[in-house]
Amino acid sequence: MLKDPSTKYAAFKGVKLDKRTWPSKSITKAPRWLSTDLRDGNQALPDPMSVEEKKEYFHKLLEIGFKEIEVSFPSASQTDFDFTRYAVENAPDDVSIQVLTQSREPLIRRTVESVKGAKKATIHTYLATSDVFRDVVFNMSQEDAIAKAIETTKLVKSLTKDDPEMQETEWTLEFSPECFSDTPTEFAVQICEAVKNVWEPTVENPIIFNLPATVEVASPNVYADQIEYFATHISEREKVCISLHAHNDRGCGVAASELGLLAGGDRVEGCLFGNGERTGNVDLITVALNMYTNGVAPELDFSEIEKLIEVSERCNKIPVHPRAPYSGSLVVCAFSGSHQDAIKKGFSKAEARAARGDTKWAIPYLPLDPKDIGRNYEAVIRVNSQSGKGGAAWVILRSLGLDLPRHLQVVFSGIVQERADSLGRELKSEEIAALFNEQYCSTSNLSVKDFEITKRKNAPENKDREIFAVLQAGSKTVDVSGQGNGPISAFVDAISKKYGVSFEVVNYSEHSLGSGTQSKAATYIELAYNNSNNEHVTKWGCGINTDVSQASMEAILSVVNSLIDSKEINL
Amino acid sequence: MLKDPSTKYAAFKGVKLDKRTWPSKSITKAPRWLSTDLRDGNQALPDPMSVEEKKEYFHKLLEIGFKEIEVSFPSASQTDFDFTRYAVENAPDDVSIQVLTQSREPLIRRTVESVKGAKKATIHTYLATSDVFRDVVFNMSQEDAIAKAIETTKLVKSLTKDDPEMQETEWTLEFSPECFSDTPTEFAVQICEAVKNVWEPTVENPIIFNLPATVEVASPNVYADQIEYFATHISEREKVCISLHAHNDRGCGVAASELGLLAGGDRVEGCLFGNGERTGNVDLITVALNMYTNGVAPELDFSEIEKLIEVSERCNKIPVHPRAPYSGSLVVCAFSGSHQDAIKKGFSKAEARAARGDTKWAIPYLPLDPKDIGRNYEAVIRVNSQSGKGGAAWVILRSLGLDLPRHLQVVFSGIVQERADSLGRELKSEEIAALFNEQYCSTSNLSVKDFEITKRKNAPENKDREIFAVLQAGSKTVDVSGQGNGPISAFVDAISKKYGVSFEVVNYSEHSLGSGTQSKAATYIELAYNNSNNEHVTKWGCGINTDVSQASMEAILSVVNSLIDSKEINL
Repeated sequence: MLKDPSTKYAAFKGVKLDKRTWPSKSITKAPRWLSTDLRDGNQALPDPMSVEEKKEYFHKLLEIGFKEIEVSFPSASQTDFDFTRYAVENAPDDVSIQVLTQSREPLIRRTVESVKGAKKATIHTYLATSDVFRDVVFNMSQEDAIAKAIETTKLVKSLTKDDPEMQETEWTLEFSPECFSDTPTEFAVQICEAVKNVWEPTVENPIIFNLPATVEVASPNVYADQIEYFATHISEREKVCISLHAHNDRGCGVAASELGLLAGGDRVEGCLFGNGERTGNVDLITVALNMYTNGVAPELDFSEIEKLIEVSERCNKIPVHPRAPYSGSLVVCAFSGSHQDAIKKGFSKAEARAARGDTKWAIPYLPLDPKDIGRNYEAVIRVNSQSGKGGAAWVILRSLGLDLPRHLQVVFSGIVQERADSLGRELKSEEIAALFNEQYCSTSNLSVKDFEITKRKNAPENKDREIFAVLQAGSKTVDVSGQGNGPISAFVDAISKKYGVSFEVVNYSEHSLGSGTQSKAATYIELAYNNSNNEHVTKWGCGINTDVSQASMEAILSVVNSLIDSKEINL
Repeated sequence: MLKDPSTKYAAFKGVKLDKRTWPSKSITKAPRWLSTDLRDGNQALPDPMSVEEKKEYFHKLLEIGFKEIEVSFPSASQTDFDFTRYAVENAPDDVSIQVLTQSREPLIRRTVESVKGAKKATIHTYLATSDVFRDVVFNMSQEDAIAKAIETTKLVKSLTKDDPEMQETEWTLEFSPECFSDTPTEFAVQICEAVKNVWEPTVENPIIFNLPATVEVASPNVYADQIEYFATHISEREKVCISLHAHNDRGCGVAASELGLLAGGDRVEGCLFGNGERTGNVDLITVALNMYTNGVAPELDFSEIEKLIEVSERCNKIPVHPRAPYSGSLVVCAFSGSHQDAIKKGFSKAEARAARGDTKWAIPYLPLDPKDIGRNYEAVIRVNSQSGKGGAAWVILRSLGLDLPRHLQVVFSGIVQERADSLGRELKSEEIAALFNEQYCSTSNLSVKDFEITKRKNAPENKDREIFAVLQAGSKTVDVSGQGNGPISAFVDAISKKYGVSFEVVNYSEHSLGSGTQSKAATYIELAYNNSNNEHVTKWGCGINTDVSQASMEAILSVVNSLIDSKEINL
């Protein structure tokens, strides 16, 4: 058993906020986005990306629409420096290349050198400001930290925007008090004021204060309080861009980013699929796609998420979890019967609503249309032994185009469940389709070779149709004939007489498959009969043919074929 | 590009809450916990658990300390019914077996039957209350829903606590308005009032109102507002247990549960490792372990998380993600150099603090002590090509017990980085240790066979020690002798004369390994010399021996051996 935490872990104390406004707000526009996949993400990989992989990833980030990309820690290695040059030389004019550096002179000089000639560049410096970092790691007082921050900012300024030879670049400074979430918020404001005074930002090109939850240490409302405190206490707010950089140690990185935006954040830093140190940075895909349910366009393009998953898994060598929001393989799946029913009904109603001009998305259990991120509807419903009738019916509708009558759905789902139970696993769509064909479209013994339907003169009205049919039975043929008020009843009569079992039609339905003269009809017929134990039972058959009469005969023959297979009838 | 969401997705509107109190609260005690791994979790698996796996999982849940376990949907299949009987018969007296049922009479009867004889049982009914569910799925008005809820509750009551033959069981009712998060909160209160009036709960055995975010449709602060509204508007609050059941569609299931607790939630439902439909239910492990940073004991035992991972991955056939909070394989790892340095310093300071009686946990980048969940410190620092000196040094400290001098850390980390870069992957601890031995503890050519240190009479003070040593060189031996002010300088003199290279000691340090008379000493010696290009260079060697003099000689010989290997010196 765990030790008593009251002796080992201290409760986290947040900032005291007098007038809290963020819980009443909502997100109304997309933030600025920074991808740090190539820096924070890459440094956290057991196998970091190769240079070629970093290039591919960089271009993917541009395709998605990122305008700010942190590409490296250029003073750390020649490889990082060289890649930074590649990014500078290949970035579109409106994209800012961001580079991270420690606050040490030779490293800063090398870092500035790495982005020379960029149209837009952001130098990202950081300094330990939290008590545990200052005390444990750097042995530095708050005053020391402020002095160091001023010195660093002066140096960066002199090497960039104050250097007459560096004027072709639009320079931005990003400063991170580390770890903000664990820093007394008052002190974070104080050190950022000092940095701002030196840098002299403008409204057009604000200074970026990144307020990282380098380690997530409290619930996301506490982080939001810290952000709101900072946002309402920093001076010249209009010259400041507040950047949120959430990690996920407590599983709340997305929430921290969202509540942080409510609290005054202007910019979100993170990685695709939540890559990054330990539990990862916040997953930018989730934060972006969540915006849809606020009716806000995220201004990032995730319409081909499957391709992104492929690139990320190959380059990062870390899988996307099956349950990852939006991107996981299981998240647009429903296995439970009641969920499947609801989704199926939702899609039907949506068609009806769309016909009336109402196209608002309202499908139970699917907050986002899978099509919007390039995912397939086929995946929406999958069938295991816990699934209900809706699931199997959906698969048959999607894979075979057959819209099963309600009673057949119930009967078939029982057969599917039994099969899934006996296999102890989910059935694939193809397996469900094959099971349907085997059960209801059987041609195992008899099939229709030819037939003729004639009108009998002077016959009673319910017997005025006569059918003469030739059935194929292996290499032989079988002739049958019967009478009824239409082709179906006549054929049932013919079969009943031929095989000595009295069949009766208890359910019939039919729909077209596709449109045009070549379109086929699908017919579903439920026949009742007495089985060999003299029980009155029913069985469904299905036939598909361009000739609706022949489709019906096939449906009837499927039932007969099953009974021949089970020795109820002798061929 | 995605379509304009303003035309397709409507912004979610939450409840209007006049006086919001939850953002100022914090979690001060463990909630009631419900595991729905065997029901919500299991139904969402592509391959649901076998009966044997469900039994193993059930006992694991009991071991963790769950007192409320939802085990099945017993009316759905004979398998579920039979497993429910198993759970009833094997549950300790203080554990309540919970079963889910649709609001239909035959299913309710079957469900009650399944838990007959239990010491404690919870019947969990649910009903569609959200607009989209009532309209799209069930075509039911709010009045219809209330009537149905009353009818269902009456039936459950008559079959359980009102039935004289069912008095051996302590019966609890759980009712879920589905999907609460998308239901007008006022209506959720209204239907729950109706249910409560029928059930007549007591303070001792309150009715459970489960308020599910069946689908997560808004940010977690909106869910918290809904919970606080419900908690402050339901009557007889003391007879009501508010249960939170968060899914993770927006990646905020943990945050929703935590903010929901602040807002009045009494109970948390979820699954281990966040199993469950689509993106999963909330991960109970994360919610529980997060409590430590609030200084609260979760009252669940996750001290052997590796074993739990094994059971979950085997039974659910879904992997735990490498970045899953607390349980992921990468979350107690640091690859970045600065992170590694900080962790290393944190552990050193912690030892010093512990000696002063301060045992509060304060390690940078590690919010929870990995030991508390049965995880290994060895995993804390791992080394890739992005790592700094701290990482390799940590591995050497942990695996070989060697506390490298700072300059040697820098030199060795360069060698490690080069190796990691050239392999393009992380190095394992064993590989780093092997690399260290190869570089600094070489015995490839020469080793110490025997030696004698004597005092020279009448010699100058800095030359009054004389060494006579016999070195083993393959099958041959080599005699060397030299003078100095101590054994090290004398041996360096001997080697210099023997091999014609003038060595000089520029760094020396030593520490013991373990304690007691049999403990060994580790010595680190940096020798300067002119190489074959006549450059003045240095090289480190390390020796480990119970005799500190011999350890020093071994360190020196390691340098010589390297130079013989690289043909700088001829043997």
